[in-house]
Amino acid sequence: MFKKVLIANRGEIALRVARACRELGVRTVAVYSTADCDSAVVRQADESVRIGPPPSKNSYQNAAAIIETALRTGAEAVHPGYGFLSEDPDFAEICADNGLTFIGPRPDVMAALSDKAQARRLMNDALLPLLPGSLDTVSSAAEGKDIADQIGYPVIVKAAAGGGGRGMKIVHSADEFVPAYEETRRTAQAFFGDDHVYVERYLRHARHVEVQFLCDEHGNGIHLGTRDCSIQRRHQKLIEEAPAPNLSEKTLQTMSESAVRGALSVGFSGAGTAEFLVDEDENFYFMEVNSRIQVEHPVTEMVTGIDLIHEQLHIASGTPLRHRQADIQLRGVSIECRVNAEDPDRGFAPAPGTLERFTPPGGPFTRVDTHGYAGYRIAPHYDSLLAKTVVWAPDRDLALNRMDRALAEFDIAGPGVTTTIPFLRRVISDDEFRAERQSTGLVERLLDGPGK
Amino acid sequence: MFKKVLIANRGEIALRVARACRELGVRTVAVYSTADCDSAVVRQADESVRIGPPPSKNSYQNAAAIIETALRTGAEAVHPGYGFLSEDPDFAEICADNGLTFIGPRPDVMAALSDKAQARRLMNDALLPLLPGSLDTVSSAAEGKDIADQIGYPVIVKAAAGGGGRGMKIVHSADEFVPAYEETRRTAQAFFGDDHVYVERYLRHARHVEVQFLCDEHGNGIHLGTRDCSIQRRHQKLIEEAPAPNLSEKTLQTMSESAVRGALSVGFSGAGTAEFLVDEDENFYFMEVNSRIQVEHPVTEMVTGIDLIHEQLHIASGTPLRHRQADIQLRGVSIECRVNAEDPDRGFAPAPGTLERFTPPGGPFTRVDTHGYAGYRIAPHYDSLLAKTVVWAPDRDLALNRMDRALAEFDIAGPGVTTTIPFLRRVISDDEFRAERQSTGLVERLLDGPGK
Repeated sequence: MFKKVLIANRGEIALRVARACRELGVRTVAVYSTADCDSAVVRQADESVRIGPPPSKNSYQNAAAIIETALRTGAEAVHPGYGFLSEDPDFAEICADNGLTFIGPRPDVMAALSDKAQARRLMNDALLPLLPGSLDTVSSAAEGKDIADQIGYPVIVKAAAGGGGRGMKIVHSADEFVPAYEETRRTAQAFFGDDHVYVERYLRHARHVEVQFLCDEHGNGIHLGTRDCSIQRRHQKLIEEAPAPNLSEKTLQTMSESAVRGALSVGFSGAGTAEFLVDEDENFYFMEVNSRIQVEHPVTEMVTGIDLIHEQLHIASGTPLRHRQADIQLRGVSIECRVNAEDPDRGFAPAPGTLERFTPPGGPFTRVDTHGYAGYRIAPHYDSLLAKTVVWAPDRDLALNRMDRALAEFDIAGPGVTTTIPFLRRVISDDEFRAERQSTGLVERLLDGPGK
Repeated sequence: MFKKVLIANRGEIALRVARACRELGVRTVAVYSTADCDSAVVRQADESVRIGPPPSKNSYQNAAAIIETALRTGAEAVHPGYGFLSEDPDFAEICADNGLTFIGPRPDVMAALSDKAQARRLMNDALLPLLPGSLDTVSSAAEGKDIADQIGYPVIVKAAAGGGGRGMKIVHSADEFVPAYEETRRTAQAFFGDDHVYVERYLRHARHVEVQFLCDEHGNGIHLGTRDCSIQRRHQKLIEEAPAPNLSEKTLQTMSESAVRGALSVGFSGAGTAEFLVDEDENFYFMEVNSRIQVEHPVTEMVTGIDLIHEQLHIASGTPLRHRQADIQLRGVSIECRVNAEDPDRGFAPAPGTLERFTPPGGPFTRVDTHGYAGYRIAPHYDSLLAKTVVWAPDRDLALNRMDRALAEFDIAGPGVTTTIPFLRRVISDDEFRAERQSTGLVERLLDGPGK
């Protein structure tokens, strides 16, 4: 196991990694921006180094400063968390060039998977089911429209380099195709510096279901079951649960096995997620692989008892997988709600400020991952995730009741601070959600209200 | 299920019960003393009623005020928590007389078990192994000394009405017996209004192991495994874990089954605990039954997935047990540390004050049950328990590492506030404790240091 790890991230996930390292006796180096001087991880890590100002290209995405800090502090490995540099194959390459272990898959595997059109082709080779669409990026609007016409509308145009819910556009009819295509290319160029796009069928009432898997550097892979992440607003997940409810054992099993097969086929190592869309007949279609830890990883931890960050550290230090597939037993139901510092009444605009009061919920089977504390000033430069609230229960009904109890218990107050808690409680009590009939359209329905 | 429950307690356990009720859709009435106006449960309960000033005989032990409040607010049941009125058969009787359900066993069962000499006799009838000693209370110093001489020293003199670690005295030799006998009688009279005492052999290197059980009103009983509570200071538990480590499956099984047998033999209903002493050869001896929820109940919840307060509520509302013995599966290891507002350097004197900063640990498999929050003023009138820190892990080593991480993470500060956290961390890292060789003498050894 490593002696010292640098955490190249901020917020709750930086604290999450610091906790995992401390539990394994690994020393930690936190890096932080000038906007994050009073961040919780700065206090909890063994060492903390300020690496630059916001925006993140000058700090959390400043590869040179991070590498320099790692070398100077004697860190042997870099944990990238999620976002920022976590899916950047160039950064992983630079780490390797400097004798540092990047905690994630090999750079070539990351590169292949971060190109979503290429990932689609690779998973097709591994016999994962795909939605009808282009098997590669399309080279012109005309080619894209031909494909769209052939598979039928609605379709979705997606940036090959996209991620985090950005760089995609739904096309409802043939006459909308060309403008949507051009807009997605422009967005893709602006956000990701790469204007390649591809086309696939759009499923209106789909569910978003994903499979957590672990692969080691020795060719072994296992899955840790599924998560349902259908509760999204503008492709941003709000509520996640494990295991995905209301799907047959056979579907869950087949999907999970196909995820591991796909991951092993490209030489994946580390913790990864295969994302699928599932239609009303339980057909599932591969969407993308995330080659990093995900925000919603705690729900899988709660039902398996396995600490995923620990496993990332073990795998990256060369240890063969410590669990066989038969050892993995899913127990009960876990739900996560992302409490964001946003104002749902103002289009979910970020609502940062200073937390004059901040008491998260506690008690049985209730976990909160947060960098917040009473007195913390929420930096306006970063995403608005404030606290992940995670509950576990033997069954889904009790898990939902427990989540509602936990959310109601939050005491958060400060000038300008608003959170998504009331909105999350609305979803939690929604009849369709309670009845396991969630889909990616549920949030829009709740926001638009009846008849709109 | 009840519609409304009055919570006749304070601090973390009052909040614990409020959480459980809310999760089951049961409305709650909190009662509080004038010293607890800003208590967390006052904010979390549906209704709150101030019932009197400290000390507790005027408020939390003021049966008349509690009954009156329950009747006036329309509560159907009373949850007594632990301590205060929780093991008072008279209070249970008054509840019944007023048409209120006391959440606990029948008053006659409570009365039989709260007399520890009588409980000893009853459990002997149920074929539970006892330490050699008097089978009933002793009626004179001479009779007591005869028994002590016969079984051999050291012996322990215990108040029949004792509890909470009070009213017991170890006697190392024959000439110490009479003074110890007289002192215990005086203490027993002063604390419990009852000077009956009994005598049993004292085990020097014993472990304290207890069995959690649930019995319904229909004659069914199950156990939920064991807890080791050997880490005590002056008979006050500091650290507890489930399951009890370093005991054979056979011993755990036999002890657990005998606890259920004993409970059913007296017509117990509700959640209870049978406490045993275990010697170095794994012989176990019945000590007492606690007919209420215990402080350390969360470690059992963490390894079974079962919410014990929920089960208390279900049982008290007449529901047959919702689990069969075969359903109960213990998973992993859970440890609890009691973080007390005390100063270990000043003989563990209470160290109350205002919590200027209070950020408990969070993250994976970490549970904190606390009524504390930033800004809370710790009332000096009550026991010094501030926060129960509970962790879970697949194995004991990781659980201990996780506990150390969690304790290190606590941020508690305020004028006059000192906690037992540094001392708890010392125990957690102690070689004998790590090696599963804990005994009731471990804390004294750590406090006295080598050679003393």
